[in-house]
Amino acid sequence: MINFQEIASRLEQQRQEFPGLANKVYFNFGGQGTLPRSALEAIIDAHKFLQQQGPFSLRVNSWIQQKVALLRQDLAQEFNVDPDTMTLTENVTIGCNIVLWGINWQEGDRILMTDCEHPGVIAIVQEVARRFGVKVDICPILDTLNQGNPTAVIENALTPNTRLVILSHLLWNTGQVLPLGEIVKVCHGYRDHPIPILVDAAQSAGSLPLDLTSLGVDFYAFTGHKWFCGPAGVGGVYIRPESFHLLNPTFIGWRGIDIDDQGQPIAWKNDGRKFEVASSAYPQYEGLRAALAVHKNWNCTQNRYQQICQLSEYLWQGLSEIEGIQCLKNSPPEAGLVSFQVQANLSHEQLVKQLENEGFLLRKLYHPDCIRACIHYFTLPAEVEQLIAALKGLL
Amino acid sequence: MINFQEIASRLEQQRQEFPGLANKVYFNFGGQGTLPRSALEAIIDAHKFLQQQGPFSLRVNSWIQQKVALLRQDLAQEFNVDPDTMTLTENVTIGCNIVLWGINWQEGDRILMTDCEHPGVIAIVQEVARRFGVKVDICPILDTLNQGNPTAVIENALTPNTRLVILSHLLWNTGQVLPLGEIVKVCHGYRDHPIPILVDAAQSAGSLPLDLTSLGVDFYAFTGHKWFCGPAGVGGVYIRPESFHLLNPTFIGWRGIDIDDQGQPIAWKNDGRKFEVASSAYPQYEGLRAALAVHKNWNCTQNRYQQICQLSEYLWQGLSEIEGIQCLKNSPPEAGLVSFQVQANLSHEQLVKQLENEGFLLRKLYHPDCIRACIHYFTLPAEVEQLIAALKGLL
Repeated sequence: MINFQEIASRLEQQRQEFPGLANKVYFNFGGQGTLPRSALEAIIDAHKFLQQQGPFSLRVNSWIQQKVALLRQDLAQEFNVDPDTMTLTENVTIGCNIVLWGINWQEGDRILMTDCEHPGVIAIVQEVARRFGVKVDICPILDTLNQGNPTAVIENALTPNTRLVILSHLLWNTGQVLPLGEIVKVCHGYRDHPIPILVDAAQSAGSLPLDLTSLGVDFYAFTGHKWFCGPAGVGGVYIRPESFHLLNPTFIGWRGIDIDDQGQPIAWKNDGRKFEVASSAYPQYEGLRAALAVHKNWNCTQNRYQQICQLSEYLWQGLSEIEGIQCLKNSPPEAGLVSFQVQANLSHEQLVKQLENEGFLLRKLYHPDCIRACIHYFTLPAEVEQLIAALKGLL
Repeated sequence: MINFQEIASRLEQQRQEFPGLANKVYFNFGGQGTLPRSALEAIIDAHKFLQQQGPFSLRVNSWIQQKVALLRQDLAQEFNVDPDTMTLTENVTIGCNIVLWGINWQEGDRILMTDCEHPGVIAIVQEVARRFGVKVDICPILDTLNQGNPTAVIENALTPNTRLVILSHLLWNTGQVLPLGEIVKVCHGYRDHPIPILVDAAQSAGSLPLDLTSLGVDFYAFTGHKWFCGPAGVGGVYIRPESFHLLNPTFIGWRGIDIDDQGQPIAWKNDGRKFEVASSAYPQYEGLRAALAVHKNWNCTQNRYQQICQLSEYLWQGLSEIEGIQCLKNSPPEAGLVSFQVQANLSHEQLVKQLENEGFLLRKLYHPDCIRACIHYFTLPAEVEQLIAALKGLL
């Protein structure tokens, strides 16, 4: 049994970094992470620097280039990949769009996706399918939460016309972690025709320890504002060097091109920048860098992940013991998402509202209809206990 | 003759609002505007509010919805259009991408664009042309800076296959204002087949007084971080209600769709939100709203524009009198961009660098090779005089 007392006392200082934790019990990291104090300071400092030295000047432009390169490096380190493989985007969905619109679709091609993907991603796939005459296959991953083999489900759904597989690494609804390495092997090894994989990493980036190089995944779209606790408006997509040639740029701008001495575009950038567009909220980039540093200073990804799992299990265990509450998973969570259903006079929506009024922030999901609690490494055991008590009070 | 003394003294207080003006002489509003103090405060306040009430909660989500609606209203008011016609984007280039990828191109269609467009936009057009077998016509607008009729040039370049005309309202290189109303009439009146117009409004939005409803333009893509002096990372595109059906959404996300009670996408939003994607740097939205308020409190758009023109003319006049300096325009500027060529031992690039070292921020352009000075309504006559003196010192 882990010593929660010790964790709690060591965490007190770390939690001081997050003003968002002070006045409530926060379980919505999968929606948006709490921004560290130092990240807001970095954002403000960046704004002030821009005004001091620019905002548009040779000096500022070169400063921005440096800072953008540093963010690319810091993110690359999180994923154990080369900085050149990183495309910076506004959010995770843009990353998915870059991949989905970047493939040279042919009529009759097929996309395979799981039945647990985010509505935003589903909507992209539907429009791509409509525009290019592509067929969409949905495979039943939801059913593998407590039994069965997700890799086999995906393998069985592959066809000779499948051109892309789309899945979430950590499912946003049930909290299941898909065995990405295995799935990549199956898809890349499909007959004589390797099938690339696009991962919606909204929930996995910043919560799972990740080595994308050894996973071999083709496209990994993520955001900085959830588990990394950066500000909203900064994310990215990793593009595996071997799969770089599979994508054409769609949304295009000066960041992705080289120009000649007449200002005419003459070439694409030959790295992740190829898919970037134009001016962004650069001060937010500095905010994300500061947030990454806060986590790193605390502990390595592997240890943070273990802590998440221990605390999630503590919540899962507590919820499992309450009559009228059913956790979607019948074994301990593999990450920070704990989804559960409540049998009460109130709907899940009403329960979430009531909990928010009592200072507990969670969210309702539609499919399956449930409530989701997110546990970060700095969640306190006492917070878990308070949530359990609050839920009991609502039954 | 205008009373510059009086302007200067009235402006002193307004200029206090802009920390970026304090320690230099700033002429790069066409690159990025100086952020008002109140805009940075609004950004910080928004970040703090998010942490206080969320960052992800029912309360915050409804607050964001309200603030986004207010930004849409404020921008709509600037352009005299309905808020529903506004799609919020990260920058002007995204707006151009939305339009260019949204049209249902057929092989053999033609795009007409001017020879003065931004490389980012040129690059989009080239890729659209490559992917869909569309032809691109470039018409010689640069030559109409001092003679000739830009409307006639465009009219002459239209063909029965032209599906879209792309132009900048205020040309970023020469500072020419194109007669947009006239051009719209010509394009919409072309034979039996009205041709829609996409405007790159990077330089016009926030500097020209604008009534998009009466101009009748189809698509007007702009950014908040140049002449509006908002933070980088927020812009938008106006889509004329009559032209809304011409575009399909390309980059797609939860902001553009309605979902059913299973979380499945069932419909597009029926207004400008249809083309929005996912999470953005919402605190920056508040920054832009604050910046818009600063200008509005000072004076109406029409009066601000007149002030810009008067000060631009003052600079243009001064530059015209210097031997070795040639303004691109041989008549007074029609807006805040004053582009000129310098005959000196130093290249334009070196001159800009030297000027920056002396505290004057301008930029070099490639086509035509020149230096561009941007005048805003709060530029001081004394700053114009200092720039003229500095340039003389470099000759």
